[in-house]
Amino acid sequence: MSRQYYNPVSLIRKKRDGGHLTKDEIQYLIDAYTRDELPDYQMSAFLMAVYLNGMNDEEASAIAYAMLHSGIVVDLSAVPGIKVDKHSTGGVGDKLSLILAPIVAAAGVPVPMISGRGLGHTGGTLDKLESITGFNVNLDLVKYEETIKKHNVVFIGQTEDIAPADKRLYALRDVTATVECIPLIASSIMSKKLAEGIDALVLDVKHGSGAFIKDVEEAKKLGKRLTDIGFEFKKETIAYLTSMDEPLGYKIGNWLEVEESIECLNGIWPADVKEITLLLSGAMIYLGGKATSVNEGIEIAIKMVDKGKALQKLIDIVQEQGGDTEIIRKPSLYPKAKYNQEFKSTSSGYINAVDSYLVGMASLELGAGRKEKTAPVDPQAGIVLSKKVGDKVEKDETIAVLYSNNDSYLALAQELMHQAYTVGVNKPADAVLVTHVIDRDGTRAFDYSTVPYLK
Amino acid sequence: MSRQYYNPVSLIRKKRDGGHLTKDEIQYLIDAYTRDELPDYQMSAFLMAVYLNGMNDEEASAIAYAMLHSGIVVDLSAVPGIKVDKHSTGGVGDKLSLILAPIVAAAGVPVPMISGRGLGHTGGTLDKLESITGFNVNLDLVKYEETIKKHNVVFIGQTEDIAPADKRLYALRDVTATVECIPLIASSIMSKKLAEGIDALVLDVKHGSGAFIKDVEEAKKLGKRLTDIGFEFKKETIAYLTSMDEPLGYKIGNWLEVEESIECLNGIWPADVKEITLLLSGAMIYLGGKATSVNEGIEIAIKMVDKGKALQKLIDIVQEQGGDTEIIRKPSLYPKAKYNQEFKSTSSGYINAVDSYLVGMASLELGAGRKEKTAPVDPQAGIVLSKKVGDKVEKDETIAVLYSNNDSYLALAQELMHQAYTVGVNKPADAVLVTHVIDRDGTRAFDYSTVPYLK
Repeated sequence: MSRQYYNPVSLIRKKRDGGHLTKDEIQYLIDAYTRDELPDYQMSAFLMAVYLNGMNDEEASAIAYAMLHSGIVVDLSAVPGIKVDKHSTGGVGDKLSLILAPIVAAAGVPVPMISGRGLGHTGGTLDKLESITGFNVNLDLVKYEETIKKHNVVFIGQTEDIAPADKRLYALRDVTATVECIPLIASSIMSKKLAEGIDALVLDVKHGSGAFIKDVEEAKKLGKRLTDIGFEFKKETIAYLTSMDEPLGYKIGNWLEVEESIECLNGIWPADVKEITLLLSGAMIYLGGKATSVNEGIEIAIKMVDKGKALQKLIDIVQEQGGDTEIIRKPSLYPKAKYNQEFKSTSSGYINAVDSYLVGMASLELGAGRKEKTAPVDPQAGIVLSKKVGDKVEKDETIAVLYSNNDSYLALAQELMHQAYTVGVNKPADAVLVTHVIDRDGTRAFDYSTVPYLK
Repeated sequence: MSRQYYNPVSLIRKKRDGGHLTKDEIQYLIDAYTRDELPDYQMSAFLMAVYLNGMNDEEASAIAYAMLHSGIVVDLSAVPGIKVDKHSTGGVGDKLSLILAPIVAAAGVPVPMISGRGLGHTGGTLDKLESITGFNVNLDLVKYEETIKKHNVVFIGQTEDIAPADKRLYALRDVTATVECIPLIASSIMSKKLAEGIDALVLDVKHGSGAFIKDVEEAKKLGKRLTDIGFEFKKETIAYLTSMDEPLGYKIGNWLEVEESIECLNGIWPADVKEITLLLSGAMIYLGGKATSVNEGIEIAIKMVDKGKALQKLIDIVQEQGGDTEIIRKPSLYPKAKYNQEFKSTSSGYINAVDSYLVGMASLELGAGRKEKTAPVDPQAGIVLSKKVGDKVEKDETIAVLYSNNDSYLALAQELMHQAYTVGVNKPADAVLVTHVIDRDGTRAFDYSTVPYLK
């Protein structure tokens, strides 16, 4: 594409004054920044102006386009079938990718999954997969395509070639208080996902105390922006808004989440994980053309678990990517962390509220997460809950067990868990997990009442 | 002072979300930035948030304080008298400092003047002074104090020690579209002026087509902010708002403006230069305690010119700072630029409007100004007008003569002058030069009707 020069100060001024940049102007800024021709200090002033003055639909599409084309866009047209991926805006204990990718692949829909690592209070799919001894997420793009052809699923990490503009912009936003900005979040997510070579996408936009976005109205705006970009790029896209007011499931950590995922694929499900995983799987199977509705997709997903096909798919892909399949078959063989300590309730009553952010930080402090991008993670560290919101608890009864390979980490984690949990005398109302659906015309909206397995 | 650590991202976020920073938080940001401990990209995100969300009075005072104390604050308490300086927000042909400093010093008021260099369309006092052969503006602070003690006046450049935070911030604002922001402009001006060791300050806040600030309401806000900071620091401060709809006087350039200043000190004044210079001089003499009102100050200023005392003061200070006094006495001895070319009217009528910005740019292109901070300037280049707004002009009559030492510069300057001038059939209404006065309580407001010399 031809390269046009713009005066960066004029472009910053335009956005500062509430104007709208053209597609070419946005393309210039992103290209110049990726090429190191635009300094960080100009980009950060621009990002703050975007944060405060917003972007219209055309600008939001343009920045996603520019970021997508800052690197390689994988062509999977040689792989038969409608390729579908899922993206979650991230939550504590969110191991859904590990469960739904084998389910959907077993149902015959190719799932090309490029995942990230954990940072801060949320874990990353790559770190979880690497807790499986030998599992290699560093496949090149040739092997990526071969693997998905063979198994309908593949798990790799974001390479240097995929949306390099996003990598740089994200790091800059992180240190300039410009993260929580819908057009920037949306373009960051979509540029990476669209680069994978997908045909369709299911999004899990989380809101609530444990999510990145607290407010449901903001989550709706993000869901709308994400699906708009998807449609703009001719990809079928459905976004589900789900509440994240406590960690998902009972296990938080790297191997611990793989272990819980294996339990789910064996039919032993925490209720919240089951509801959202089957819904997202059903939507992916529907978008992948293997069901005529989301509800039928959910029924197929359940069959894939019940017949053991989803678990077998996980075993196949672990084998293909060099991992130890023995521990997938018998998770009890996996070595435990050296130290564990119970976290107990200091009063009797019902668990009323959990601050998932603090639970995520406790898991990080135990060794499961990282504070800096290049730090290693401990595969065995984490938290196993024995109580969820709404459960009755007695004084001194165990709410969770903390695991770590360094006993000096336990005290701070205990303190964070104490801050995270609120026990009250009254039983709280049941939470609604899936709150909204955003798709092109609303016709694919999920109807709870027709799927008795879930409610 | 004790150094406290703050999380810069939290401080940026606070301003981004419309909050107000404490004095300590602002002090931290400015200190850390000056010490290279806060990167440019964080400061530029903060500056854009300030631009868009503003600062309250406390924050505006705090940033001025922090910038002032980022370097040396000169103590002139050993110099007898009330030290008064003047600052102008800058305009084309604005040589007023060169005229009023000798007038006010001759009246017995010490004028410690630390000036800047020209950049872009406006010239700088230092560049003009240096066109006087031998004139040395690089005095150290000991010599600065000695000189003002001896002559009541001194002209030096901003040293590295004076408000270093401003130097860095100004350069960053210039490339991140965060220049035109009242609290940032005000703190930049006041941190440098307060560091000089002054007791009182007269401000000339320009507005209109040729000024930095076009809108009079914005100029009022800046005048209010500047005087508020002055009062906060216990310095008597008066701000005059003056319109800048055409260049001041008839001569634009470095030596050309010195030459016109000498003419004024010899009693040959352009009307606009006379009105504003005498007003500002009167205010300085009043604040310096040598008159009981601004009006009396103006009368004293006129006497200083009429009796030749102001011109003698200029000769004295030129001698003291190593300059050639012969050319001050006989300006016609100064060598002319190698090339000159007339700029002529293309139609008959009255000069209706002049875009001073374009005239400033024409002067720059002739060699009088600089596009980059370290570029040299040509002392002889510039423009001599023969017509002002309201003057009658015939087709092909000369409006101005352009001077340069490089004849290849003339064509672009001609083009800019053509764009700058509007000749119409009707005579335009007389402009009002001084539009507003801002001082503590309004009692020092200047009353035109009582000074027949001026109107």
